[in-house]
Amino acid sequence: MTDNIQSLGEFSLIESIKSGFKVPEGAIGIGDDCAVLPQKTGLQTLVSTDLLVEGVHFIREDIGPYRLGWKSAAVNISDVAGMGGRPIATFLAFALPSDTPTSWVEEFVRGYRKLSERFCCPLLGGDTTLSKSGISICVTVLGECAEGRAKLRSSAKPGDLVCVTGPLGDSAAGLKLSLYGRNAEVIYADNKKVDALSCDVPASTTESLLQRHFQPVPRVHSGLILGKCDGVHAMMDISDGVGSDIRHILKASGVGAEIDVEALPLSDELKATCSAKGWDAVELALCGGEDYELLFTIDPESLAELEVKSYPIGRITTNPELKFKGSDRDYRGFTHF
Amino acid sequence: MTDNIQSLGEFSLIESIKSGFKVPEGAIGIGDDCAVLPQKTGLQTLVSTDLLVEGVHFIREDIGPYRLGWKSAAVNISDVAGMGGRPIATFLAFALPSDTPTSWVEEFVRGYRKLSERFCCPLLGGDTTLSKSGISICVTVLGECAEGRAKLRSSAKPGDLVCVTGPLGDSAAGLKLSLYGRNAEVIYADNKKVDALSCDVPASTTESLLQRHFQPVPRVHSGLILGKCDGVHAMMDISDGVGSDIRHILKASGVGAEIDVEALPLSDELKATCSAKGWDAVELALCGGEDYELLFTIDPESLAELEVKSYPIGRITTNPELKFKGSDRDYRGFTHF
Repeated sequence: MTDNIQSLGEFSLIESIKSGFKVPEGAIGIGDDCAVLPQKTGLQTLVSTDLLVEGVHFIREDIGPYRLGWKSAAVNISDVAGMGGRPIATFLAFALPSDTPTSWVEEFVRGYRKLSERFCCPLLGGDTTLSKSGISICVTVLGECAEGRAKLRSSAKPGDLVCVTGPLGDSAAGLKLSLYGRNAEVIYADNKKVDALSCDVPASTTESLLQRHFQPVPRVHSGLILGKCDGVHAMMDISDGVGSDIRHILKASGVGAEIDVEALPLSDELKATCSAKGWDAVELALCGGEDYELLFTIDPESLAELEVKSYPIGRITTNPELKFKGSDRDYRGFTHF
Repeated sequence: MTDNIQSLGEFSLIESIKSGFKVPEGAIGIGDDCAVLPQKTGLQTLVSTDLLVEGVHFIREDIGPYRLGWKSAAVNISDVAGMGGRPIATFLAFALPSDTPTSWVEEFVRGYRKLSERFCCPLLGGDTTLSKSGISICVTVLGECAEGRAKLRSSAKPGDLVCVTGPLGDSAAGLKLSLYGRNAEVIYADNKKVDALSCDVPASTTESLLQRHFQPVPRVHSGLILGKCDGVHAMMDISDGVGSDIRHILKASGVGAEIDVEALPLSDELKATCSAKGWDAVELALCGGEDYELLFTIDPESLAELEVKSYPIGRITTNPELKFKGSDRDYRGFTHF
């Protein structure tokens, strides 16, 4: 009787979501017009919101509800990590077609909860509504950081090293693999080479890249450590690709940068897949986006003392231009319009 | 060249939105991964989020961009008013089809800004993305209130008067008028009486009801005063209609209520329109929703000292049932599924 959300009803749906999330002490969660959160002296609140739209940000059948729930929470929490903050709570608003199976929502919430629990960041409110076509998911995250300690895009200084916290391009390769798997027949019908999922790369390699795309792990712990380091100047998370994201730091800071394409950290899985399929790993690393690693600039003297993995990929320059050393191309990341 | 959002580009769109909103002192707004807000001792943060979906919550052509912008901000800020809090900032995420005219977005932002300025509640962040079909708008509001002073749904006490801050049903009548205007020809083709917009009601009356539906004013000032009054126990805003909303208070508080349908405050405009069109004013008042007045319960002795307009419409009872005095019907409000 309750196998889709229309028969389940709005309030039963909210109750079932609410029951899975513990409310932290001193807070009031789902049930009133607003959630209520304590404010603490000497801290600042961080707030970010992201909207994920079916057909634009995800293909429902490819990602599946569990991973979509995980990713919805992850990409938002990543914005708090990108400022060096600690995530406190999220708020989830979603629009669903009326025939959405209840099991779909349960799996979505299970994935959302799994990621949330990993970072002790409970869901404390939201909105549920019908959609006429397609699923829309809007997540808002609240975080906190010590007063005046949030890492901004505007603080990069000439001479800083540009660093990232992990390999780039895996997520973009995962997306490409997923789309190729889906479109294999179409490609064949066009008389092009069939380039289907995992036909020439070991399944474990493919799976690792798909995982990086569908279930990214926000760098919350790295972000907290980087947030406390005075030598770290500008910081943000990598959502659109370094080729786009670094431009925000340069513009906000009034500086330039030289990025060394040969210094980009690339995973073995990415290299193996690009080699087998003839893809350009550097392009995926710079333009693909959705890696959700952190991009930061740091006083070179502070790098040695850092306790988090970091890969220098370039340097901030006074000359307000972006140059790519080791390539004549101009790499740009993903833009939404 | 920039007459739709695709040609304008994501970052120009964000810049144009950003330029219209002043950032309060001590805060950092649009431009980083998160907005940064100061936290103050002795206060609590209130957070709420609402998702508006085209075809479900609004018909784009009927409401128009200016009023849609206004309403998107208003319905969210109303949730902070419903807890007795002061709105601090909003965050706006929207998904738009790529052919959305730039002028549409400008008008939307103008309406959003007008309402925001009225309540000194700036837009401090958000997300802009493409949509494959239809417009989705997700607004998150942050507010604050003195520690432990947020008015909850769970605090109603037997003997409390149930009150509202203003007339009910106007918004529902406005919606009905708007839909009737739209469907006039269809109704005629069905051989039913033509019941088009304003054919038997003065235009000023119609306009007033349409205004209440399309441009609701959140009761922020009343909410702040009610929030400071110890005699006010439970409170929330009226979004789905008293027939639905009062049930949340009763369930959360473990009490019942008797609502006197003859005591419901009805505007002259609603009465005139219902009389001309044969509509049931009580049904619109209890089941229509979207009035965005406040619904609260108050110790009867505190009512006289209240400085805000308030209309007693019933009483909280120990017996956990909802009764409607003066009617044999059971009124339920709007539910989303």
